[in-house]
This record gives sequence, structure tokens and C-alpha cells, in this order.
Amino acid sequence: MGAYADMSREELQREYDAAAAKFEELKSRGLKLNMARGKPGKAQLDMVSEGLFSVMNRPEDYISDGVDCRNYGELAGLPAARRLFAEILGCRAEQVIVGGNASLQLMYDAISKAVTHGLLHSPRPWCKEEKVKWLCPAPGYDRHFKVTESFGFELITIPMTPDGPDMDAVEAAIADPAVKGMWNVPKYSNPQGYVYSDETIRRIASMKPAAPDFMLMWDNAYCIHEFRGEFAEFPDILSECEKYGNGDMAYEFASTSKVTLPGAGISCMAASEANIAYFLKLMGIQIISYDKVNQQRHVLYLKDKAHTLELMKKHAEIMAPKFRTVVDALEREIAPLGIAGWNDPRGGYFVSLDAMPGTAKRTLALCKEAGVTMTGAGATFPYGVDPDDSNIRIAPSLPPVEELQQAIEVLCTCLKLSAAEKLLAEKQ
Amino acid sequence: MGAYADMSREELQREYDAAAAKFEELKSRGLKLNMARGKPGKAQLDMVSEGLFSVMNRPEDYISDGVDCRNYGELAGLPAARRLFAEILGCRAEQVIVGGNASLQLMYDAISKAVTHGLLHSPRPWCKEEKVKWLCPAPGYDRHFKVTESFGFELITIPMTPDGPDMDAVEAAIADPAVKGMWNVPKYSNPQGYVYSDETIRRIASMKPAAPDFMLMWDNAYCIHEFRGEFAEFPDILSECEKYGNGDMAYEFASTSKVTLPGAGISCMAASEANIAYFLKLMGIQIISYDKVNQQRHVLYLKDKAHTLELMKKHAEIMAPKFRTVVDALEREIAPLGIAGWNDPRGGYFVSLDAMPGTAKRTLALCKEAGVTMTGAGATFPYGVDPDDSNIRIAPSLPPVEELQQAIEVLCTCLKLSAAEKLLAEKQ
Repeated sequence: MGAYADMSREELQREYDAAAAKFEELKSRGLKLNMARGKPGKAQLDMVSEGLFSVMNRPEDYISDGVDCRNYGELAGLPAARRLFAEILGCRAEQVIVGGNASLQLMYDAISKAVTHGLLHSPRPWCKEEKVKWLCPAPGYDRHFKVTESFGFELITIPMTPDGPDMDAVEAAIADPAVKGMWNVPKYSNPQGYVYSDETIRRIASMKPAAPDFMLMWDNAYCIHEFRGEFAEFPDILSECEKYGNGDMAYEFASTSKVTLPGAGISCMAASEANIAYFLKLMGIQIISYDKVNQQRHVLYLKDKAHTLELMKKHAEIMAPKFRTVVDALEREIAPLGIAGWNDPRGGYFVSLDAMPGTAKRTLALCKEAGVTMTGAGATFPYGVDPDDSNIRIAPSLPPVEELQQAIEVLCTCLKLSAAEKLLAEKQ
Repeated sequence: MGAYADMSREELQREYDAAAAKFEELKSRGLKLNMARGKPGKAQLDMVSEGLFSVMNRPEDYISDGVDCRNYGELAGLPAARRLFAEILGCRAEQVIVGGNASLQLMYDAISKAVTHGLLHSPRPWCKEEKVKWLCPAPGYDRHFKVTESFGFELITIPMTPDGPDMDAVEAAIADPAVKGMWNVPKYSNPQGYVYSDETIRRIASMKPAAPDFMLMWDNAYCIHEFRGEFAEFPDILSECEKYGNGDMAYEFASTSKVTLPGAGISCMAASEANIAYFLKLMGIQIISYDKVNQQRHVLYLKDKAHTLELMKKHAEIMAPKFRTVVDALEREIAPLGIAGWNDPRGGYFVSLDAMPGTAKRTLALCKEAGVTMTGAGATFPYGVDPDDSNIRIAPSLPPVEELQQAIEVLCTCLKLSAAEKLLAEKQ
């Protein structure tokens, strides 16, 4: 078996027929599998639940730093929860606001407030601007892109590299004062699992955007989410930006969605003290306080960074075999055919695969037909349009390994089928 | 002792001197008491905590209607939580979205989305409107007024009556298409504890506002919060509005902040099915799902409306003596002097007091000097300005009865002092 590109029409036809037969066999299994979303699996939830739900027992557990976490108050979050996130992110507790169960909500709300009220250095609310443009390193996280699309911003694609966003492209783009911000998942990027290099971070932190209220969205969703190897230290973006006089540019986000529970964790926004003061004033209109009982539950359960990293090791034991299963199958089934490339990350929640250009949609439609749901084609690009129709995001976390083996078998078969189909059509 | 109004200068001076001496004595006690906010007291929190935090024990408790409440998903909330709120409010479960710990956040977010995206029947997002005006029945809830002030709307004061807002004033105001909405706390209004009459509700539900996207904000914060007498049935605003072809006009809100825990309850928005579908689309950009573990905790703990009403009876046992303490002291100390009027509500969280015009600010400044924190003067009016400088909101829920007795003693003394002071100045 060699690369499809080198095959004759007859050889390709044989490959196609074999894949088609395999596809029919897989379809007949009536599978119903899901690799669409970075959802932790049941084993991870079970591992956490018992401990997390039993830490709050005694009356003294309701009190933290003298605050009764059951009542109203402490808009910025429990001091102990702010300290916990600060330790994990490497910033100061005063730079942290602890929110509800969703960092996405904190990100959306921060941008929404920029639109309705403006940021600290905004000449006016963004809804009064002629046009707002936004930088989207792609492939990237579809929910990020959808937030900025939803507010009517013009999304500008920035190519991703293994070192992070193409900084030449970024530096050229920010000369336009209408460019108001940029999405980032700096550690184990979604979906490629890339880690921004020190040089990329330095160039980002020292940017001089034309917009005085440029919003560097730093979604550190996978800050402690290694599933292979040791915890990798990562620069604190707030102090990096401070170094270059850009202290008020960075808005960092993190959550325990993939540390404790996806639906019932806690989240945070970290920013300069000036930004925190500005945002607390705006947030105080919206909410009296976030759920401090759940914050206290997390403080008691996670304790500190070292203890949290121990828990992440246990998540890694569950996650690593799943990623192994995916990458091994791709290496075995797809690598020899030369019809796709992929990454093999050390952390995060995704494997990003680049199929033969023009075959991603077709591959995912076939997967669906065989009962395997994947992230929609194009989702990793602004407006949901992948110009090459190539990128496929694989999310191996939810299914148990046995199911995953079947799901990846389906994906490999569909990749072969769509590639052979396309090459055959081109040879006609 | 008679009414201050009938007293001679000398009699008044004696009253003043007595109150001033009493004030000095109270000040010397070094009190630190708080009647500023509708915060439940510790006894209420303790009553709820043990049960609420121990309902989630067994693996099957994490599953509700087949949904694992620990993972992502179910943007509209757990079906069982939607059913619970629907039963309490008298609407359909399909009309309910269950949110996080704060109904204020759901209200703010609904208005924020009207500003950035527009509502179902909006010709355009409100940020593209020349001007947005908003009706504020007053005295009312300061946090409501602040939300709409924060978005730059022009606040229009509507006088409150014991039957609800002055509907003649409302009907005249809504002829202006720039008037986009109205605040309401229809049952046990904040701060007066008034209950909207059936006739008021009929007139509201049958309104024909010029704005096609008029937003009837119906904050049913105290829907089951009787502390005296039996639970009082109250019309479901959604079906009332539906009757008059206004189904998409009403947005109802409620929470368990004063049923379970202020900082860690659950909240809901109820609206027409068409509005729910529209909002779920917008909310899906902002959040994947609210905290369903806490929703499930509430479903298991509260069970249903009947069981929830039993719990409210226990809250009433704690609340009733506190309201008694306040109203008795006012009857005894202030009524004979004719220097203030107040209500004696059956539910809700406040006693609203109207001091002699021009003395509210002075009274509250004196209270503060003597160590008693009250809601700021003017807070119950749009822009924080009470045209008569008269209304004072008393929130008796937080302090235990013993502390409350001292706090109300301070308030009574300060009311006397400021009234006598003013009358003396006028007689000069």
C-alpha cells in the first residue's frame, strides 16, 4: 500500500472499492458515537464528583476569610478562590475576578460591555463605531469566532503556525484602528494543540495596536491540561504586557470545566487592577455576586496549584489512552496513504487533522451517515468557512476507548473514501 | 405627646433636645447594624444549608431525565428545573429558561441583548435607536433602575399606587414609540410591598404600546414570599398577555435567592415559546449551559410547589417577628408624632417609610453616624433622586430581632431629630 497520489486509476479504484465495502459494513453496525465536542468523559466526572460534593459539611465550611459564602456579596469572588486562580495563572489575586460556571460567559460579557459601554481606554462604546474588526487565528475555536461574529464584527483570519499566530500578519493588521481585538488559546490551542512560543508571546505583549482599547483575549482554557509529560510552565500574560506598557490590553480567562466538572465548575477573568476596577463597576449593575458556595466547594476540593496538578495527572491517565488510540489509528491507517496530516499534542482536548483539500465536508458527511458525529466542517474558521475544506477537529475525550476505536475506524474509512473518490473524479 | 405639626416652638425644642440626647446615647453604644439590603439572615441560611447540600449523594442523583447534570449541555436548563419553576409561576415548562444564581443577571442580559441584537419584534438593535425610554414605577427597586440607566435609557417615573403603577400614566407614556419597556415587581413590590390588583394586571396585559418590541419586565421576585397569612395565588402574566395578543411582550423572572440561598440559588426567565426560541439562539453564543448540578440540587431539595411552600412557611416564622418589630416600633414611637407614614406588608422583604418631605437624607445620615446602615436616600427613585426627599426603605431581614430592636430605635430617634430640626428651622 502506497500513497494515493502515486496510484494508477485502477489501484485507486481498488482502494475506493475496499473503503466503500468497509464503510457499508461499519454503517450496518448502527453506531451512535460522538467526537464533536471537548466534553470530558463519564470516568472523569465520576472521579471528581464524590470528592467535590462532599467537602461542604460543617457550618465552618460555609465561611471563607470571614465571608459567609451562602449570602449575597463579594462581587469579585471569594478571596480564596481569587488566590487559587492567581496561583494557577501566575498573576496576583487582585487581578482576578471569579465568575460562574462558564468562562465563555465572562468572555462574551466582557466583549458585550465593550460594545454597550466601552472599555477603560475606549473613546466611545463600540456600538458607536463605524466598524469593528477582530483577529481570528485559524484554525481556532468556533465558539470564540461566533461571539465576535454575533456582535457584527468583521472577522479577519490570521494563519496559525506551530509557534502561535503569524505575528507578521498580526502586526500588519493592528495598524488599522478598527481592529479592536484578537482571540487566543495560547497553550494547547484549540484545535491544533500548539503552544505559543516565548518569542510569539513577546511580540504579542509588545504590540502597539492603533486602537487605544485593543482587547487581547487570552483564553487559557488548557493552562494545566497536559495529558502527556509534566506540567509545562507558561508565561503570565498580564506581567508580560505590563513590561511593555500594555498592562490594560490583556484579558485572560480560565475555568475548572475540565478540572472538576464541565457543567458546574468555576471560571475567572484576570486583568490589570485598573481593568478589574473598571469591570467591577460595570458588573455590579449586572449581578450582586456569583455562586460563592460553588467557589468555596472548589477551594476546599482543589486546595492549591500543587494539589490541582495532582488531580490533572489523574485526568491525564484517562485522557492519554484516548489520544493514543486516535493518533495510532491515523498513523497506521492514514499516514501511508499521504492523504492527511495531523498533530500529536501533549495537552488540550483536540487532535486537528488536515484532510486532502476539498474533502473535509464530504468526509464528515460520510461519518455522520455511519453514525459518528464530529465537529462540523469549517467550524474552526471564521464564519464557519474553511477556504481549503480540509481541517477536521477530532475530540476524543467523551467516548470510552472501546467506542473511540470504532469511531476512529469510521473516520479513517471515510477519509480514504472521500480522498479516493476525489482523486478518481480528477482522473476522469 | 401630640403631632409635631401642632406643637409650639418650645414644645418642639423640648422634643428635639430629648431626641438629641437619645441620639448621643445611641451613638455611644458603637453599634454596627445593617438594614440596607434584602439579605436573608443567618437563621434562614442555616435552615436551608444542611438539607440543600446533602441531597446529592448517589450516582443516580447526577442524572435527571436522562441528562448527566455534571457535563455540558441543556442550555435551557434541566427539564425538571424548568417544570419546577413553571409550576410555581403557573406557566408552561416550555416557557422557562433556568439560569445561574442570579435573576438580575438574566434581566440585565435580556436587556443587553435587546441593545446589541434587538428583540424578536425589534426593527433594529436598540443601540441603533436615536433614544430609548423606560418606565419606572417609583418607589421601586434601585438595581432595576440602575440597569436601564447604565444602558443610557431615559428613565420615566410612573407613580406607584397600592394597586400597582398608575395605569393612566403608563397608558399615556406608551404612546411614545421610544418607550421600550417597563419595570415591575408585581407581587409584594420593592419597597412598598404592594400587590398589583387584577384590574392593573388586566390593563397591563392589554396595553398597546407604540413600540413593537415593548419589554414588560415582570420581576416576580417575591412570588411565594408571604411571611404573614397564606400563600396568595397570583395571575400568570404570560397567559394574561397571550389573551390580549401580547404574548411576546412579557418577560418574567424569579429565583430561589430567598427560598434557598441568596448567593447560590437558581433563577429563571419565563416568556412566550417564540421568545424562548429567540433567546436560546442568542444565549447559545454566550454560554454552553448554566450550572445544572445546582439546578438538580434544587430539584431534589425543593421537590415541587407544595413542598416549596412548606419551606416558605418556615422562612415566614423567621421573617414575621422581624417585620413585627419594625412596624410595632414605628406605631409606638412615630405614629403619634405624625412625621412619617409606612406600609405593613404581608410578604416581600421591605417596609417602605415616607418621612416628612425633605428629611430622608438627613435621617439616613444620622442613622449612619449612629452605626446603622440603611439603603441610601433616593435609591428607590430613578437616577437615585427622590423629588420629595422622603422615601426610606427598611430591610429588616438580615439582623436578628435583638439587633433589629436597636436599629429601629436608632431610626426612630433619627426620624424625630430630623423632623424636629426641620420644623424648628421653619419656625425661625
